[in-house]
Amino acid sequence: MWLLADLAKAIDAEMIGNGNTTISGIATLERAEPHHLSFLSNPRYRPQLGNTKAGAVIVGDADRDGTQVPRLVVRNAYASYAKAAQLLYPEKRPQPGVHPSAVIDPTAHIPANCSVGPHTSVAADTRLHEGVVLGAGVRIGSGVEVGAGSFLHDGVTIYDACSVGQRCILHSGVVIGADGFGMAWSGSSWIKIPQIGRVLIGNDVEIGANTTIDRGALDDTIIEDGVKLDNLIQIGHNVRIGAHTVIAGCTGISGSTHVGKGCRIGGGVGIVGHVEICDGTTISGFSLITKSISVPGVYTSSIPSQPHRTWMNTLASLRSLPELTKTIHALKRQQNDTTEDGQS
Amino acid sequence: MWLLADLAKAIDAEMIGNGNTTISGIATLERAEPHHLSFLSNPRYRPQLGNTKAGAVIVGDADRDGTQVPRLVVRNAYASYAKAAQLLYPEKRPQPGVHPSAVIDPTAHIPANCSVGPHTSVAADTRLHEGVVLGAGVRIGSGVEVGAGSFLHDGVTIYDACSVGQRCILHSGVVIGADGFGMAWSGSSWIKIPQIGRVLIGNDVEIGANTTIDRGALDDTIIEDGVKLDNLIQIGHNVRIGAHTVIAGCTGISGSTHVGKGCRIGGGVGIVGHVEICDGTTISGFSLITKSISVPGVYTSSIPSQPHRTWMNTLASLRSLPELTKTIHALKRQQNDTTEDGQS
Amino acid sequence: MWLLADLAKAIDAEMIGNGNTTISGIATLERAEPHHLSFLSNPRYRPQLGNTKAGAVIVGDADRDGTQVPRLVVRNAYASYAKAAQLLYPEKRPQPGVHPSAVIDPTAHIPANCSVGPHTSVAADTRLHEGVVLGAGVRIGSGVEVGAGSFLHDGVTIYDACSVGQRCILHSGVVIGADGFGMAWSGSSWIKIPQIGRVLIGNDVEIGANTTIDRGALDDTIIEDGVKLDNLIQIGHNVRIGAHTVIAGCTGISGSTHVGKGCRIGGGVGIVGHVEICDGTTISGFSLITKSISVPGVYTSSIPSQPHRTWMNTLASLRSLPELTKTIHALKRQQNDTTEDGQS
Repeated sequence: MWLLADLAKAIDAEMIGNGNTTISGIATLERAEPHHLSFLSNPRYRPQLGNTKAGAVIVGDADRDGTQVPRLVVRNAYASYAKAAQLLYPEKRPQPGVHPSAVIDPTAHIPANCSVGPHTSVAADTRLHEGVVLGAGVRIGSGVEVGAGSFLHDGVTIYDACSVGQRCILHSGVVIGADGFGMAWSGSSWIKIPQIGRVLIGNDVEIGANTTIDRGALDDTIIEDGVKLDNLIQIGHNVRIGAHTVIAGCTGISGSTHVGKGCRIGGGVGIVGHVEICDGTTISGFSLITKSISVPGVYTSSIPSQPHRTWMNTLASLRSLPELTKTIHALKRQQNDTTEDGQS
Repeated sequence: MWLLADLAKAIDAEMIGNGNTTISGIATLERAEPHHLSFLSNPRYRPQLGNTKAGAVIVGDADRDGTQVPRLVVRNAYASYAKAAQLLYPEKRPQPGVHPSAVIDPTAHIPANCSVGPHTSVAADTRLHEGVVLGAGVRIGSGVEVGAGSFLHDGVTIYDACSVGQRCILHSGVVIGADGFGMAWSGSSWIKIPQIGRVLIGNDVEIGANTTIDRGALDDTIIEDGVKLDNLIQIGHNVRIGAHTVIAGCTGISGSTHVGKGCRIGGGVGIVGHVEICDGTTISGFSLITKSISVPGVYTSSIPSQPHRTWMNTLASLRSLPELTKTIHALKRQQNDTTEDGQS
Repeated sequence: MWLLADLAKAIDAEMIGNGNTTISGIATLERAEPHHLSFLSNPRYRPQLGNTKAGAVIVGDADRDGTQVPRLVVRNAYASYAKAAQLLYPEKRPQPGVHPSAVIDPTAHIPANCSVGPHTSVAADTRLHEGVVLGAGVRIGSGVEVGAGSFLHDGVTIYDACSVGQRCILHSGVVIGADGFGMAWSGSSWIKIPQIGRVLIGNDVEIGANTTIDRGALDDTIIEDGVKLDNLIQIGHNVRIGAHTVIAGCTGISGSTHVGKGCRIGGGVGIVGHVEICDGTTISGFSLITKSISVPGVYTSSIPSQPHRTWMNTLASLRSLPELTKTIHALKRQQNDTTEDGQS
């Protein structure tokens, strides 16, 4: 339970209206009740601002007069909503302590304020820093380091020698440090190339459920500070992801590719191996990157669906396009001849 | 072991031939032996009907005279095959009881006819209903509800406060209720938006291996009754999937999108966030949906492969298509001029 | 620590230079130090050959005089690098023995030289062969067979009745033998078709993290010897993958499709169900296969990204292509008429 005036102070907002309004949760403009704080950041919801039953709303400067309910006026309504939500819904963490069913190697270092869940194992020479949480059924290899405050949810696996920074969140089913996909054809079979690099993950990184990040072949795979990865993403060996880059679900990045800082990569994207994507690049969802990108901007190759028959027509035309191109060039030559004839 | 006559009664089929034929299994027309029941539903296999060694076959009315072996004539041969297969291969369930290595919070409610496998954990205030099966290494958070008869295979994870309906099947590696991919840019870093919604799963839902369904940001993510999800699917926060919709593997659905009832969505599909797909929509595999769909039908944007060189030619033509379009329009203008000249 | 002369003998290379050079690791040409062996296989790195600080290098015959450092001359530098790396970085395996927290059914057969990690369970009638390693939190169903020397990493799940060959490597989160995606529409709901086939995996197969392979519906799903699968791949029921085929990450193969031997399939590929891909086929990443392939070669349908605005122009042209095609044909007819007129 917060007083609106206290929230205003905490998120550094200008308050208009009754600061004694009590707030106990957040809801959308449409669903909010009088004990809720709401917010307007997406302009499509502006029509709901006048009718909301919220006890208070977060708005940008342009909407300061768009409602009569108590309001918090801020520069970036979405970021301020995020901050307020963190205050109203503080992350729940389990009590410190190691569950008796956990299996901890005697050489592992686990500070007393860490929490280790049931059926979790921690191998030799691994070091957890202060306040780390390992959920249930987590498997940590040997020689691993996990930075202070990080939270590894149920069923995360970290292979030997990898490291995770501070305040990271790894969701269930994440696999860090499995072997990269490296092999050489002998002439009759594939010879496995030992994957001896590590995965090094920076601070404040969040990784979604069932995402996989492979260890490097010779050098390391690197995820820099503040990177946010969604679910079911595949990061190949020796990839580097620059700081604060975000990547949506089902995207795959092949080996040795370097993605710059502050990039925004959509879902279902593919990036081939051994390319460089410069800082600040945006890649639309469902697009394929086959070459290095050296100019920031938005890159796309996705095709939105059409009714099936319409698309089949388009596809048929596409397939005859090389033939069609020849026809056009022939027509042009003929046209020019005709015109010249006419002029002569 | 079934008598054919008993099977006929059980699946409500018209029987032709010897009802005392004993049936102990099901096989394809090509591989069936005399103790097998077989079936014809896909017309491409009709030529095999005359030669099958099966003890009996399920056929539609049109094929009632297509073979001399004892047969069960039905309206929908594929559905009847499914029913017969369920009778001949009843699902195996482990014995009731909680394995001694399982870790169950004392406040959790687990009826005596449930089965809980080794290394499974169930957190506080969670309620399993009658006959629930949890495999090995399952992790159930706190405040979770699992409906009667549901089967959660080895290694499933359910986060706090989510619920699963009755008679559901969740395959290994499924993650229900991880945080949605929500954050706001502060100007220098991403601020996490607490994901306080839940995942609510209806009755008779089946979810394939390693599929992930994120919890809602403010409201809930909802999977309605009878939905069938294949493997490695990503369902974003606040998505709603309508009853009896089926989705094939490797498909991703972004946040806040609503998919209608009775939809059929292929594999490798992408659907952007915040759109509405109406009831009864079919989306071809490998297609992208970027806008709401309000008319049921089949939607497609996938491109089948060609020999590499052919495709490279097509692609080159495609890239020069805007230029080509200008050429054509110029030709057309010229043509019109010429024709007019000719006419004048 | 190896003497170069010993390495030369072990990988069957011609040695030039000081055979007493001691080698303790492998590094890229750029990063190698005097105790490292390096290699040149990708011609783009040839300029680095002259400047490397490596103690020795593996080169092909064409590069035998490209450096003054001791060198191993071979036919296939990449394969020889792989062999040398295996010698310099031998795979680490845990000590034999069954961890006390593991739960082993009394009817399971586990030779004394196997290693079974913490919180791993092995169900009834399962047989591990000599030297098998099961990591932590592995779940093996009943009636499973795992061939000699195979290594199942932490958190792998094998359903009942499946089998894994010799010397296989399964990475964390792999799920073998979950139910295939089979159901029949009854008219009002989906009826589950029991999936009674198995998954049979040959020898020397490697499977990447969180990849899923479904069991067959009636017959078995088969992965032949020497197949290499990357992470997050989905293999549907009754698929057969031919020997030594390699498949990159995020690819999905639908049910009953047969992929030949020695195929190379890129990442993010989709292959529909019930098709046959012949031996020796290459499929480019991000491509879709909708029909059987009977001629080996490279098949492609992927579209590389362009700057967003350029692509939007191309897409607009593509959508008006059927209309444009009509215009061109009309122009051609007119042109022909004009020309005929001119000739008459």
